[in-house]
Amino acid sequence: MLDIEINHNNKRKKLLFDEISHLINSQQLEEIPLSENQHHPDLTYSILHKQQVQRLKNKLSGVHPADIAYLLETLPQKQRLYVWENIESKKTGDILLELSDVIRNNLLSVMGAEAVLSATEKLDCDEIADLAPSLPSKVVQKILKSLNLKNRQQLEEALSYEDGTVGALMDFNMITIREDISLKDVLRYCQKLGDLPEKTHQMFVVDQNNVLKGSLPLQKLVATPKGQLVNSVMNKDIVSFTPDGDADKAVQDFDRYELISAPVVDKNNKLIGRLSVDNIIDYTREQVEDDMLNQAGLLEDEDLFSGVWTGAKNRWFWLAMNLATTFIATRVISIFEETIIQLVALATLMPVVAAVGGNTGNQTSMLIIRSLALEQINSSNIRQFLLKEIGISLVNGLIWGGIMACFVFVVYQNLSLGLVMMGAILLSLFLGTLAGITVPMIRYHFKLDPAMGTSVILTFIADSLGFFIFLGLAAIFL
Amino acid sequence: MLDIEINHNNKRKKLLFDEISHLINSQQLEEIPLSENQHHPDLTYSILHKQQVQRLKNKLSGVHPADIAYLLETLPQKQRLYVWENIESKKTGDILLELSDVIRNNLLSVMGAEAVLSATEKLDCDEIADLAPSLPSKVVQKILKSLNLKNRQQLEEALSYEDGTVGALMDFNMITIREDISLKDVLRYCQKLGDLPEKTHQMFVVDQNNVLKGSLPLQKLVATPKGQLVNSVMNKDIVSFTPDGDADKAVQDFDRYELISAPVVDKNNKLIGRLSVDNIIDYTREQVEDDMLNQAGLLEDEDLFSGVWTGAKNRWFWLAMNLATTFIATRVISIFEETIIQLVALATLMPVVAAVGGNTGNQTSMLIIRSLALEQINSSNIRQFLLKEIGISLVNGLIWGGIMACFVFVVYQNLSLGLVMMGAILLSLFLGTLAGITVPMIRYHFKLDPAMGTSVILTFIADSLGFFIFLGLAAIFL
Repeated sequence: MLDIEINHNNKRKKLLFDEISHLINSQQLEEIPLSENQHHPDLTYSILHKQQVQRLKNKLSGVHPADIAYLLETLPQKQRLYVWENIESKKTGDILLELSDVIRNNLLSVMGAEAVLSATEKLDCDEIADLAPSLPSKVVQKILKSLNLKNRQQLEEALSYEDGTVGALMDFNMITIREDISLKDVLRYCQKLGDLPEKTHQMFVVDQNNVLKGSLPLQKLVATPKGQLVNSVMNKDIVSFTPDGDADKAVQDFDRYELISAPVVDKNNKLIGRLSVDNIIDYTREQVEDDMLNQAGLLEDEDLFSGVWTGAKNRWFWLAMNLATTFIATRVISIFEETIIQLVALATLMPVVAAVGGNTGNQTSMLIIRSLALEQINSSNIRQFLLKEIGISLVNGLIWGGIMACFVFVVYQNLSLGLVMMGAILLSLFLGTLAGITVPMIRYHFKLDPAMGTSVILTFIADSLGFFIFLGLAAIFL
Repeated sequence: MLDIEINHNNKRKKLLFDEISHLINSQQLEEIPLSENQHHPDLTYSILHKQQVQRLKNKLSGVHPADIAYLLETLPQKQRLYVWENIESKKTGDILLELSDVIRNNLLSVMGAEAVLSATEKLDCDEIADLAPSLPSKVVQKILKSLNLKNRQQLEEALSYEDGTVGALMDFNMITIREDISLKDVLRYCQKLGDLPEKTHQMFVVDQNNVLKGSLPLQKLVATPKGQLVNSVMNKDIVSFTPDGDADKAVQDFDRYELISAPVVDKNNKLIGRLSVDNIIDYTREQVEDDMLNQAGLLEDEDLFSGVWTGAKNRWFWLAMNLATTFIATRVISIFEETIIQLVALATLMPVVAAVGGNTGNQTSMLIIRSLALEQINSSNIRQFLLKEIGISLVNGLIWGGIMACFVFVVYQNLSLGLVMMGAILLSLFLGTLAGITVPMIRYHFKLDPAMGTSVILTFIADSLGFFIFLGLAAIFL
């Protein structure tokens, strides 16, 4: 029944997944040798096995490639391979595209060159280019050979753009029309094509030299009297991109101008490709995930069921950074060991000063990193921003330093210790703020990503400075 | 020239912005009183002023609302208000929608009720609903009164959905058709409408009771022979949403199935609205920004040029959390002050143990939080994931604990201290991993967002445990 199909989409999907899991698991059970007194155990096993496989294949054939990709990611290695072997070959290309890099590489590593070749047959050039980094160069060469001239040129072009550029995100699925024809002709042309490229939402209007003149959204095409010329209906002021443009900027423009697709043009305004909102969404998700992984201390994405050794290595980089920076920060403490012996409460309280400096540095750096990304900070307003941030650090330093001073006085009955605490927090917030501004600004100035690793650097600075300020003040005043 | 217009879009925009900045700044200069010996200083000033204002208005009229919003966000308060006063009133509604919450509230607070009312006149009901939380309830009541019955019902419906649901993101701009008409009729209907709602990319097919039957993408409409019936062309198996559904899940589905728009239906599968990819992108961006702000220790988004006091308060919540948790963790240290006096190197080294525990806890929690969000973790595979994570913590504990033990031995020439360090790091990684799994799982179990605040809790646990383990082991073995 149609109603149920549409409305209970999620429920239906869940049911299908349960059935598939059941099939996979029952398959495992049957691999346990049958008892000896059964007749023809091999034959019985073989028939049962074939039935199961057929049932699994039937189930899988009705599932969207994105859902199969999801299923594969949730399965441990053995079951994952079992499912992978039983997927129709025409779907494998689309599924590979949907998988996360780790799982994709995992599955590609068990596929033969021939299987990979046939998986890519159904894909567009820009999609093959997305897979290419995971493929052995021998296979990429074979794929290139198997394509016709136009597709080969497109694939070579797609492969030539670096990650993070518009070119790496664009595709070549577009319909171009001339501006001097009528909408009736356009409609006739569409019907001749019969099947427009996926996600066509506008056509691009070009002249005989392929120079972009405008765009004709399908929405306008269907709602305008058919006698009119493309010229008089098309959008002339459209947002376009160049292939070497920054992908992050393209994301901002798609968001800001609510774009669904946009043309990509070369320096002479000749149309070379299309940027489509689903690629923008994919790219954004990957960026956000990478940022989150790095911030949480993981080098890259991880197979949930990877081996212990692989998983361990994925954590080394940030774990080592963490150990190294903290260990170096403790060298500051070691200078003051004499002071600590005289008043051991200093050792107890010093983590507080280090922590608030890091907190404040991160707060300020977050605002500046984002403003740099959105280009909201410029020479005319940076001074005002700086003054505000420093003002905040002083206000908060006095308030929270004062509060902590009270706590310290209550716990240790030592007024000077309380005052040292207050001074240390005030200074720590002030210097943390300065670090929060300078670290991203310096990285930005040297054309490095201002966000990358800033949190680690700030924590290191805040720790070292916090220990130094607190213990130093104590050494002077106590 | 058209070519330049399209190709140098960004350059042109920058130029325009420079001109506008110039106009704003020259305006300020003229507010300096003219010298006394000039004739009719007031008149001269007034004419000059009017010319400037007119020039600014002309410039602004050619700028996209999203770009004006961006401009307003980069301007300090005084200039911001000056620009805001000179924007055509028909654009103000769209600009308000594009602004971040802080700046929007800032501008609304200086607008009269009448101005707000006229700003919302050009907006759709779902857009007014987005603005509503920033408006005084008196104004919302006035807006409701000014609408016709259908729009009032839509606005009331839009207002009734909580943040984070599909209902809060949907709009009502859709075209519905019947399934038993021909595509020719559909095209005729479109031309009668003349102007399809913004971002129409498919039509929804419903029966006489408004029950959803399928969808007809414009792409199919233009490419299929016009004699065919809607019935035979429409997509029947489409992804639909319910208004009380989780917005995050909708985001996942838009990403997974590469949707551009999708119908929203009630329990009886009756069509009530449309979910559109630009709203999904907006929502995602806001979510990501909120997460980043919280993680960086800011309560909410901030006007770059807010007052010091407003900015300071925005940082209090996470600053106070940070101070409180660190201060409590230091209470653990205070138990061992006797031990520290005997070997002050313990005070120096203890931050290292606390730091690695936090790092590892965050690594594990990141994987589990994401898997929970993507529903990749279930009862059948959680055990395998747990064993892997624990295995990793032990492997890394032995390796990095061993490395740190060597460092400690080199620096302090104390073998027992090195061994205590190794044991403490091993235990700290192990317990950090357990905490990284249990904290998000418990939050998830009680239907709380597993990500929110997890990092703060983990750092607190890792600090306290790290100090306790390291100093405790030292107290026993040294």
